[in-house]
Amino acid sequence: MEPVFVFKHVRYQYNKDRAAALNGIDFEIPLRKKTAIVGPNGAGKSTLIFHMNGLYSCASGEVWFKGEQVSKANQSDLVRHVGVVFQDPDDQIISMTVRDDIAFGPTQLGLPAGEAFRKADESMELLHISHLAKLNPHELSFGQKKQVAIAGIVAMDPDVVILDEPMAFLDPAGQKRVQEIMNLLMAKGKTVIVATHNMQLVAEWADHVVVVKDGQCLGSLTPRELFCQHPHLLKEAHLELPLVLQLFSGLWEEQSGPMPVTMEEARAVLSRLLTNKTGTL
Amino acid sequence: MEPVFVFKHVRYQYNKDRAAALNGIDFEIPLRKKTAIVGPNGAGKSTLIFHMNGLYSCASGEVWFKGEQVSKANQSDLVRHVGVVFQDPDDQIISMTVRDDIAFGPTQLGLPAGEAFRKADESMELLHISHLAKLNPHELSFGQKKQVAIAGIVAMDPDVVILDEPMAFLDPAGQKRVQEIMNLLMAKGKTVIVATHNMQLVAEWADHVVVVKDGQCLGSLTPRELFCQHPHLLKEAHLELPLVLQLFSGLWEEQSGPMPVTMEEARAVLSRLLTNKTGTL
Repeated sequence: MEPVFVFKHVRYQYNKDRAAALNGIDFEIPLRKKTAIVGPNGAGKSTLIFHMNGLYSCASGEVWFKGEQVSKANQSDLVRHVGVVFQDPDDQIISMTVRDDIAFGPTQLGLPAGEAFRKADESMELLHISHLAKLNPHELSFGQKKQVAIAGIVAMDPDVVILDEPMAFLDPAGQKRVQEIMNLLMAKGKTVIVATHNMQLVAEWADHVVVVKDGQCLGSLTPRELFCQHPHLLKEAHLELPLVLQLFSGLWEEQSGPMPVTMEEARAVLSRLLTNKTGTL
Repeated sequence: MEPVFVFKHVRYQYNKDRAAALNGIDFEIPLRKKTAIVGPNGAGKSTLIFHMNGLYSCASGEVWFKGEQVSKANQSDLVRHVGVVFQDPDDQIISMTVRDDIAFGPTQLGLPAGEAFRKADESMELLHISHLAKLNPHELSFGQKKQVAIAGIVAMDPDVVILDEPMAFLDPAGQKRVQEIMNLLMAKGKTVIVATHNMQLVAEWADHVVVVKDGQCLGSLTPRELFCQHPHLLKEAHLELPLVLQLFSGLWEEQSGPMPVTMEEARAVLSRLLTNKTGTL
């Protein structure tokens, strides 16, 4: 299947005095897969995202979206197809009520007001935030604002949804709801891309990982390949193993089978170990 | 030892139409211990913090700081003793360069400029952000801004440092540095308080946990007491067990000794289990 994004030797520099944010980066993002983009702070993750939603155009190199090269002429169309939930929801608050705020995106896409508000209402229901509809978004907690920002993107019904560190500041119930929404979007045939430092989330959720550092791609592979076969890439990118692998790493023997990566796999192993145990602990 | 904070039946309401943010809350925070405040989004954690640094005064009830009741007369002194690193570092950015921004706090406390900048420079060195000194804080990544905000508080040298969800958006290297700073502050005799949803951080770091929900305190206890003896409090507060306990819970038998709570304890158990194992996995 054709990738949803192809980046070829993409270069972008914010300021002549500073290093390039993207330094000839090459990678692909598969269509309708769950992709995680990981890398240390300042690696270029946000700059990549700005190229995906058409906010920036590359200084050199090529960005392709669904088989079509992004150019000055079609760059602004990307916003219809690619929705981004930014790290800081304050960057996305426009209106004085939550409902107006969520309806703003669909209205900008040209939908009549009635249709835009219908989409906003559906989206609030999906995210279980209908009770916030009449409140001023600026009065909400960070976690609530984040959910409003996600609802605003969902209401625009884009093909690709990019979430930049979506779980931060959310309590477990909020995190679960966001993960449900991510799964729901996948089930609807969307492509979901997450930029995150949360390696356990990558282990549990992602089909594919792109490792970024200093504006270059260190690797584009599955979570298991990254964590079990190429953990040196994590070290190179100043990242850490997911907690489950931190627990087992160095203790696990290859002949015992594949190393547990997800919580479920780790619990299955522990269950067997605790039943098989010979002596006392 | 006298607690650093005592809250007695504290009540605070933002708006007559909404539920009280603090609903007669009672708890103590021990002096020179690492305390975590946990609770779901909207539980009242931020409102509590605003009472600790003198930004809010309670509608009814009493707040005591180091044996002295906080009153209208002395409330504004709290800012000298209690530094808060807020969730959103944009809320704390004042100046056009990082160095000026960090020196702003000490200047506000009445220090002469030379002294304030010396404190700012020391603080940047501690946080390994001296290379950012001349940049505009608004141009930094969220993670970098967070480190600047922490440096600004450290430069004011308060007795109590409160960090609201300090690890969010930070890469592992940044998280490690923040944890080092938290430990360094403890070693200097400060009291460090963290509001967080990260239960593994609570398990690894905290001496004491205060569980908050609906503006009330559900429990004030050690992490091990919370996770092993009173996990129902977590459920009541819509929180989850730390990952290590999620792995072992339901599989661990009491006669095997205390359940592992920290990563180190879990690795010790796994090491014994994987050496003792009888058959194949």
